[in-house]
Amino acid sequence: MTHDTAFDLRIDRDRLMQSLAELAKVGAFHDEQLDLDGVRRVALTEADGDGRRLVREWFQAEGLDVVVDKIGNVYGIRAGTEPELAPVLLGSHIDTVPSGGAFDGALGVMGALEVVRTLNEHRIATRRSVAIGFFTDEEGCRFGSDMLGSAVAVGRHTVEDAYSLCDADGATIGQELARIGFKGDADPTAMRPHAYVECHIEQGPILAAEGIDVGVVTGVQAICWHELDITGRAAHAGTTPIEYRRDAGLAAARINVQMRDLVESGRFGKGMRATMGVVRTFPGAVNVVPSRAVATVDLRNPDTQALADAEHELIERYNAIAGQLDVTIDWCRTARTSAVAFDDEVQAIIAGHATALGLSHRPILSGAGHDAQEWASIAKAGMIFVPGEHDGISHNPRELSTPESCANGVDVLLRTLISLADS
Amino acid sequence: MTHDTAFDLRIDRDRLMQSLAELAKVGAFHDEQLDLDGVRRVALTEADGDGRRLVREWFQAEGLDVVVDKIGNVYGIRAGTEPELAPVLLGSHIDTVPSGGAFDGALGVMGALEVVRTLNEHRIATRRSVAIGFFTDEEGCRFGSDMLGSAVAVGRHTVEDAYSLCDADGATIGQELARIGFKGDADPTAMRPHAYVECHIEQGPILAAEGIDVGVVTGVQAICWHELDITGRAAHAGTTPIEYRRDAGLAAARINVQMRDLVESGRFGKGMRATMGVVRTFPGAVNVVPSRAVATVDLRNPDTQALADAEHELIERYNAIAGQLDVTIDWCRTARTSAVAFDDEVQAIIAGHATALGLSHRPILSGAGHDAQEWASIAKAGMIFVPGEHDGISHNPRELSTPESCANGVDVLLRTLISLADS
Repeated sequence: MTHDTAFDLRIDRDRLMQSLAELAKVGAFHDEQLDLDGVRRVALTEADGDGRRLVREWFQAEGLDVVVDKIGNVYGIRAGTEPELAPVLLGSHIDTVPSGGAFDGALGVMGALEVVRTLNEHRIATRRSVAIGFFTDEEGCRFGSDMLGSAVAVGRHTVEDAYSLCDADGATIGQELARIGFKGDADPTAMRPHAYVECHIEQGPILAAEGIDVGVVTGVQAICWHELDITGRAAHAGTTPIEYRRDAGLAAARINVQMRDLVESGRFGKGMRATMGVVRTFPGAVNVVPSRAVATVDLRNPDTQALADAEHELIERYNAIAGQLDVTIDWCRTARTSAVAFDDEVQAIIAGHATALGLSHRPILSGAGHDAQEWASIAKAGMIFVPGEHDGISHNPRELSTPESCANGVDVLLRTLISLADS
Repeated sequence: MTHDTAFDLRIDRDRLMQSLAELAKVGAFHDEQLDLDGVRRVALTEADGDGRRLVREWFQAEGLDVVVDKIGNVYGIRAGTEPELAPVLLGSHIDTVPSGGAFDGALGVMGALEVVRTLNEHRIATRRSVAIGFFTDEEGCRFGSDMLGSAVAVGRHTVEDAYSLCDADGATIGQELARIGFKGDADPTAMRPHAYVECHIEQGPILAAEGIDVGVVTGVQAICWHELDITGRAAHAGTTPIEYRRDAGLAAARINVQMRDLVESGRFGKGMRATMGVVRTFPGAVNVVPSRAVATVDLRNPDTQALADAEHELIERYNAIAGQLDVTIDWCRTARTSAVAFDDEVQAIIAGHATALGLSHRPILSGAGHDAQEWASIAKAGMIFVPGEHDGISHNPRELSTPESCANGVDVLLRTLISLADS
């Protein structure tokens, strides 16, 4: 069978779901409140090491040539008929947040493996080599720097800088890579793919709400994070008139309310997002005006300049609120990334295959960061989103995409790979 | 020496401060962040037992007849020349919040002891007996019911109901009173004083800010507490548009902002207070829209009806905000007390003695709850406030009133006692 006549070529849905389920057992935990199993496979922990060994075995079982680079990125290479050409790379990550689910990242890696298994099963040769991979510490929740393995691969960070990053206990990435046996020898920048494609869960509600099968990702939003530490003055809730109060909790509340107002104003575009995910007051007693509040701010916008404008206005509001309430608002920017646009040709190929498969699709912007945005700096890159159940909840044991949704995404991934590998 | 000629009678300032300092050693802890010693003498703990034994010894050393009642209130009686008359009672509490200071409650008890010491030293006889006392669990932070010992004494709670209250570990007040050796035999309702007077730190900034020596307390505000548990839905901060969000943290923020608006509207009087002391979001991650927020509300007003009106309006706002943001706001009322007005005659006596001593004074409303509000239901009652340093901070190791402030208050307490005990 040759692939240019394989109009009915499909991946094996059951095999794909079986792989996802097997991988989800590594680092599984039971969430008592939800009465659901989740996945805790934080980067470079024992569980991550176990997951890496399992997936590496699966790569080897498919006859792939496995390479581990110095930052712990793991690749499986399936040689093309013209192996001197740059390969097409499919991948994602297998690390999770501490209370994660079975799909975030894992679908991209198990999907890539399923693509290779399908190629092998149908003995389909490609002109370019096919590389599949998983990249170290995409989540960034342990060492504080997300998309780390991809960022080192594309040269945004040096491997030396990455090695020196510490977790909360002082363990470095260099030490932890060696400890779990994934401090490889290969040059992380040796992988220079022709194109990169990643299948991922949407992590949002849009595709499911609109009944769309597949999202053709147009790019990744610009992101800006602040940590706020607001200092007021503790005072008795019963005895202290307004004019003597310096209420740190009220300052955090005003910021939160004004963030929503900024979004609703429409001045920063329809894609503006603003979220205060963390708020906590101290000392935290019913009858004490808070002396301190800690809070976080997450701003996103598909346009890098619009995000910068929104951040600028928010900082002015911090200053105004600090003046109104006589509090000090210390803030620091803990993340800022620019918007990334994915390759038009890759988007067109994805959309074309979705149409050919009879799947509904729409362009969609990614609100979350992904490995693909790093690879986009050195290769034609694109992403395929699949709908998530439960309003697209992610980073949670309730994270779920149906077998049909997962298979649709990986079917499109397979055909997109074939098109790109033959180009 | 007879007291009606004792125009220059003063308490012993150094002895008063020494007693406060000795008592503060019982349950002392070091606050690392403040680099200050505080007091942790939570009701019916070992430390409270140690403090009770120390103060009881001091009562006995002054020749007082010591009585311990069934709820653990401890009285020392100094017989008057007409001991069949109802006594004048001076007192407060020696239990503290978990991170408390050396003055809250303790000043009222050590001040009462200093009054007796001064009477003894100057061999001053009074017509009515003088009773001094400390009352069980005024703070209410362990068993959830404040002014407990006083409330049982005046008949607001039965001793049986009080015994059955549990702390977070399931220990009951009945068990804990027995364990620390203060489950006495006396009928808690046997104490029926002619009058009750309590000297206390202001726990607010007003007296110090205005440079006033003594506050003549006119009454205690009505108080209403709510606990809020707000349920929204976790969602990705990057991918979830406003219309799909159910942001529990934003709901808490809107409530906090609108509480301040209610106060500033002036519609509930100048004495209206509203505080959100606790706010915490869950899961509490920078990039997750909060699925849950817990918060507390503290409303106070010198007028019971105005407080009820404000609470009613706030509940309407809960409902409005819940509708706007598609969240559920579960609230429960964890406390509600009516306003208490202190006795006009006692206020006049306090003010007269302050003037005679050359002390500046002003009427002041208590924002906090005190044992005196319980005694006011069965006796002529009043309170003397003294200024606090550091803007009147209390329930904190920084809680501080100067020796001069403490002595001024207890000098007025002494003379007020003499006037009432001879009336």
